[in-house]
Amino acid sequence: MIPPLAIAMGDSAGVGPEITAKAWNARELHSLAPFFAVGDIRAVERVWGGPVTRISSPEEAFEAFPAALPVLSIHDTGSITPGTPDVDSARCALQSLEIAVGLASASAAGAVVTGPVSKAQLYRIGFTYPGQTEFVAERCGVAGDNAVMMLAGPTLRVVPMTVHVPLAEVPHLLSQDLVLAKARVTARGLLRNFGIERPRLAFAGLNPHAGESGEIGREEIDILAPAIAQLREEGIDAVGPFAADTMFHPRARAGYDAALCAYHDQALVPIKTLHFDEGVNITLGLPIVRTSPDHGTAFGIAGRDEANPGAMIAAIRMAASAAQRRAETAAAGAL
Amino acid sequence: MIPPLAIAMGDSAGVGPEITAKAWNARELHSLAPFFAVGDIRAVERVWGGPVTRISSPEEAFEAFPAALPVLSIHDTGSITPGTPDVDSARCALQSLEIAVGLASASAAGAVVTGPVSKAQLYRIGFTYPGQTEFVAERCGVAGDNAVMMLAGPTLRVVPMTVHVPLAEVPHLLSQDLVLAKARVTARGLLRNFGIERPRLAFAGLNPHAGESGEIGREEIDILAPAIAQLREEGIDAVGPFAADTMFHPRARAGYDAALCAYHDQALVPIKTLHFDEGVNITLGLPIVRTSPDHGTAFGIAGRDEANPGAMIAAIRMAASAAQRRAETAAAGAL
Repeated sequence: MIPPLAIAMGDSAGVGPEITAKAWNARELHSLAPFFAVGDIRAVERVWGGPVTRISSPEEAFEAFPAALPVLSIHDTGSITPGTPDVDSARCALQSLEIAVGLASASAAGAVVTGPVSKAQLYRIGFTYPGQTEFVAERCGVAGDNAVMMLAGPTLRVVPMTVHVPLAEVPHLLSQDLVLAKARVTARGLLRNFGIERPRLAFAGLNPHAGESGEIGREEIDILAPAIAQLREEGIDAVGPFAADTMFHPRARAGYDAALCAYHDQALVPIKTLHFDEGVNITLGLPIVRTSPDHGTAFGIAGRDEANPGAMIAAIRMAASAAQRRAETAAAGAL
Repeated sequence: MIPPLAIAMGDSAGVGPEITAKAWNARELHSLAPFFAVGDIRAVERVWGGPVTRISSPEEAFEAFPAALPVLSIHDTGSITPGTPDVDSARCALQSLEIAVGLASASAAGAVVTGPVSKAQLYRIGFTYPGQTEFVAERCGVAGDNAVMMLAGPTLRVVPMTVHVPLAEVPHLLSQDLVLAKARVTARGLLRNFGIERPRLAFAGLNPHAGESGEIGREEIDILAPAIAQLREEGIDAVGPFAADTMFHPRARAGYDAALCAYHDQALVPIKTLHFDEGVNITLGLPIVRTSPDHGTAFGIAGRDEANPGAMIAAIRMAASAAQRRAETAAAGAL
């Protein structure tokens, strides 16, 4: 059996505590693996009337989980006002994340699920990473290009090869090396986390109509096609580049296991259009399993009991499934 | 009653003739307004066994339509092989388009519906426009920036403000003037063609997360926000710029009548993801009504009876509805 999952609840003024509690409430309906929350226990109590119990170590979560939400609580995080983030709620988020990642790295937690944070608040307390993904990668000793952000929903998985950069920089950042690095990690990650033996990777072109044979841009010819050819030589089932607009209807989606996109919106628009309330962010390429619900802190509705826990539940399920698969692979390898 | 609609069947080696015939076959099921095809009658007979009748003027279509597909036929277009386009099939497409647009401009046809063409083949015969839209606009005496391509499906309408250009050029092409021109035409077009009195226009940001207050690009601050403010001063209900990835899920779509996007894929990915078999391309800003099924020639399946006429049927319905609305408005204005 895998160790309990650690849920870093994110910014304590956001919807993280509420969706964590609601996920616990739905544990039987969705057959969720045992988990515990990491964060300020008061942030949960403030927004939820259900049973909560303090634990002092991950293993206590197994016994506590059936009857109450187990919380490994952080103390002295200041006053908590749902919907009103501040440096205290950001510090709480960062500390929760560090603890959860540390426990997973030490195999005391089976995986890390991270709740939403406010980057604006984190920057105020000296956080210098583009996001939680890069922070987790560094804590795990993995270089940025070798950690891959994948967004996964019930009928689609996408990988943006460039992420939080201005659109004008995307054509300069796209290189054969970048494409190769992202694709290799993606192929390996689909095997390790999803058990897909020979993953099919489909690449989107950068330009409209994938450049129309060079008529509307040359990145497909100069960068994407040679990289795809190289990947195929390595035995990776890579195809494309395809016109992005015809890659995401149901028949097209059936043809691949992950779509590798050139930039943020090319990947995020289709997944959020299709799976807004159930999208999961999973980081590939790490020694630990890390997932996250693919939405923000939603400060505007925090504390109002309006938050939809769908994506958090999906993130917990995906984390448990990936952790279980890795444990079985490791056990098989040890035989 | 509006005059019959003219359907320019597009490349005679593509699926245009087949989907036109299939749309005629579904005329009662979908209560389609009378229409006639413009193209080589042999292209229809080659791929379809149903009744076809030659007409020599649009008005004959009314009498013929209930019993057979009326075709205003073009002669001497060479041999026709479905799936194998050539300069002859391209010439036939261009001639059909010119005739259909001419008839609509003269009010002998109620609207023009254009079937798919091969731009590669058209370029071989000296066609110099980026697409049929620009050709139709010029034939109607309308400048390029004042003709707006809108893609419309049952639950979403989108306008790409830049279209068939390399992604690297998009940031340079996006200007306040361009945004203002596209938005004004869109607002007026939604009124004229769809009867929406006070259309709500939502703008997508160019950069991820709409630039995050300038952290990831400044086009939102320098170009989009001022243009939106200007539009609001003019009485147009314009909002944004918003993060593109959160604009297209069902709840978000309910908040606007059209999404104005910075570039091709930002607009085309969501509409084709949601409405691949029923998307319609409608040109706003023209004196005539022009629609088109939002798909290509599909040479790969031409002549195999596999083409889905859904988008063609939707294009005919939208053209008829827009033409009817314009006729009523004109009649009301004349009272």
